[in-house]
Amino acid sequence: MSMINVKKRTHYSDEITPDMDGKKVSLVGWVHEIRDLGGIVFLLLRDREGIIQVTAPSKKVDKELMDKMRKSGKESVIFVEGTVKESSKAPNNVEIIPTNFEIINKSKQPLPLDTTGKVKAELDTRLDARFLDLRKLNVNAIFKIRNKMLNSVRKFFEENGFIEINTPKLVASATEGGTALFPVTYFEREAFLGQSPQLYKQMMMAAGFEKVYEIGPIFRAEEHDTLRHLNEAISIDIEVSFANHEDVMKILENLIVRVIEDLNKSCKKELKILNKKLEVPETPFERITYDEVIEIVNSKGVVLEYGEDLSRAAEKALGEEMDNYYFIIDWPTSIKPFYVMPNEKNPEKCYAFDLMYKDLEISSGAMRIHDHDLLVKRIKEQDLNPESFKYYLDAFKYGMPPHAGWGLGAERFMMALTGVKNIRETILFPRDRRRLTP
Amino acid sequence: MSMINVKKRTHYSDEITPDMDGKKVSLVGWVHEIRDLGGIVFLLLRDREGIIQVTAPSKKVDKELMDKMRKSGKESVIFVEGTVKESSKAPNNVEIIPTNFEIINKSKQPLPLDTTGKVKAELDTRLDARFLDLRKLNVNAIFKIRNKMLNSVRKFFEENGFIEINTPKLVASATEGGTALFPVTYFEREAFLGQSPQLYKQMMMAAGFEKVYEIGPIFRAEEHDTLRHLNEAISIDIEVSFANHEDVMKILENLIVRVIEDLNKSCKKELKILNKKLEVPETPFERITYDEVIEIVNSKGVVLEYGEDLSRAAEKALGEEMDNYYFIIDWPTSIKPFYVMPNEKNPEKCYAFDLMYKDLEISSGAMRIHDHDLLVKRIKEQDLNPESFKYYLDAFKYGMPPHAGWGLGAERFMMALTGVKNIRETILFPRDRRRLTP
Repeated sequence: MSMINVKKRTHYSDEITPDMDGKKVSLVGWVHEIRDLGGIVFLLLRDREGIIQVTAPSKKVDKELMDKMRKSGKESVIFVEGTVKESSKAPNNVEIIPTNFEIINKSKQPLPLDTTGKVKAELDTRLDARFLDLRKLNVNAIFKIRNKMLNSVRKFFEENGFIEINTPKLVASATEGGTALFPVTYFEREAFLGQSPQLYKQMMMAAGFEKVYEIGPIFRAEEHDTLRHLNEAISIDIEVSFANHEDVMKILENLIVRVIEDLNKSCKKELKILNKKLEVPETPFERITYDEVIEIVNSKGVVLEYGEDLSRAAEKALGEEMDNYYFIIDWPTSIKPFYVMPNEKNPEKCYAFDLMYKDLEISSGAMRIHDHDLLVKRIKEQDLNPESFKYYLDAFKYGMPPHAGWGLGAERFMMALTGVKNIRETILFPRDRRRLTP
Repeated sequence: MSMINVKKRTHYSDEITPDMDGKKVSLVGWVHEIRDLGGIVFLLLRDREGIIQVTAPSKKVDKELMDKMRKSGKESVIFVEGTVKESSKAPNNVEIIPTNFEIINKSKQPLPLDTTGKVKAELDTRLDARFLDLRKLNVNAIFKIRNKMLNSVRKFFEENGFIEINTPKLVASATEGGTALFPVTYFEREAFLGQSPQLYKQMMMAAGFEKVYEIGPIFRAEEHDTLRHLNEAISIDIEVSFANHEDVMKILENLIVRVIEDLNKSCKKELKILNKKLEVPETPFERITYDEVIEIVNSKGVVLEYGEDLSRAAEKALGEEMDNYYFIIDWPTSIKPFYVMPNEKNPEKCYAFDLMYKDLEISSGAMRIHDHDLLVKRIKEQDLNPESFKYYLDAFKYGMPPHAGWGLGAERFMMALTGVKNIRETILFPRDRRRLTP
């Protein structure tokens, strides 16, 4: 058999229905399971869209073909041609009586991982054999939802007049002055991997692009080993000119609602596999102040002092009280980045917000400072050197409009949508302190 | 004036038409030009969608407002409220008689760059002040086209059943064994930046995703300093199961056609600014063999020996003969990566293809090897160590379907679409041997 004459399907498994009884079809896919009862062989063929039963009774199917089925081996790639048969005993009331059966690529046995989901494996084993892990229906469902989520996000941006931008991931200096940077050897110089497109998307406001979005990788060299952090993640970022924090919070609310509405239409099957029901949240989302957060958290017996960022314990305590999407507003200026606009009447507080889902932060945003001198002052107050921000600061000298924006963690959002507890479940090939492969 | 009470527009400049005569409108934007004739001040307001004239005759507009206009300064951010007036003398036959004028953020003078396009600047000066350079209509147009091109590409993939994937950019070893890698300090280990999602998208075929695409950054540490190379670029990648090279060449042809059709509808204004007419190419694109390329090139007096990759001189010679999109096929196996499927009857040749536009390579692809043992053999033949590809090779042991795919350089494609001669014009913040900022 020539390797370039590739066998094609006429239908995906889920397109074959009982009313097609008698029709000739062909399928390609993987051997999900084989059950050999001697006089009859059952084989489940799995493709991207589902699973269908191939039934070979000796009365109807010749011996040679039945033997091929028996010997095909779990997870081998196969081609099946046959006749559709309505059958009340088969899954989805339909099966295929094969007239032709070919093994396209035989799988080694035994498998390093069970793909039917019957035998549980440790996450590390699963991630090492991720290509097999991803064949499991429940794992697969997460990434079909992720695909549709990203589709929906982009459609929303497009319909709302946003321009997609791609900003560099190789940068000369730190975005926010943080230390959590991966150094790169860039020819004879040192460079870093971008922690966020923050400074670039702000520069695009000075360029007059008005509404921009970017969906791209961010890199954070933080040594955490938690269920909610990755060292490489996908960030959904926007920046909007002639807008304040309230304007972009509304955009964020509308986006969340839109994605959930879209998923309820396009991912019925996948949400069912995950046993997940998505309620469309009401807008506007609840807004609580940072000061109220302290009260709630303290009332639960967890210590959180004014001026501290939320610890994991504080988030958990807060999540006991708040069980949907909500904003935390009125943050102390001191714990937010230099580019956040301070409250004009009370500069100790600022126009930053976090979007939370229960105990999980999924987005951070703010109205930004658009005044050059105020920005320089804030950079200095955070013990950073304005010289390192020359190119960024230049953009504020020649006509920077007022602007606001946010970054939404794609994987955090996926945790909220799917309910999985470990962020590593929401990304194909996670990168953390210990894991750099596959 | 409070900085958070952001002034809003009622209309973009291009939404204001002569038939709105007498209507009250407000606009926000930048001062593009000011002409002060004493008794009358003309100011061009520029926003994302265009330019509109604000006309202040002393008979109709009070002195204080006229003075504010005079003093506003080029490229300051302004707010204008006023009445629409039909006027055969104004650009687009319409102007605004202002009743309110505010400077939102004053621009420093002089500007490091002229934004009207009258004074030409060197590329380095332009890139240093990219936020100003991007305000120029012809520069801006490129990125509006880029936005629509990416939109169109994604729509095409979505409509054709592709699943979007995000693969890691931090990798443990080289994709294709090449040396052109940027090293990263990943905690206590060494990592590299991905040159291509190649190995990951192939693993996704083993995962059963069947048709995937990724649009993301790739990093190449090549020391070239040409008009067609970047060290960080965006790659549009696909991989398709149960497909051979011909199948994915068809997908690529259809995609190119689709994008050009879409741009002709959605980017009329921008194409006009660039003085560019896009012809929809006929499919199938012409296919010439590598051997024919040698003949053509040699006939033009340029030396190209069998087994060599195309030099710049060879590409140029070829471009003199071929003036549209075309494929080069039947490449020698020795100059293509190890994962390319060799021709079964003549293993010296392989099922790889390059998509060219005139003298520019814009995409490379191939049918891939799906047989584990053949792949190991090819890795060894290219003097690479199969041990370094353990995770990748594992994916070929347990049911890898036949597959094919390609990578299309977003910036190269933009060069073909817009006709710009320097690839740096097609990316917001280019990265090359010398440039890491802004």
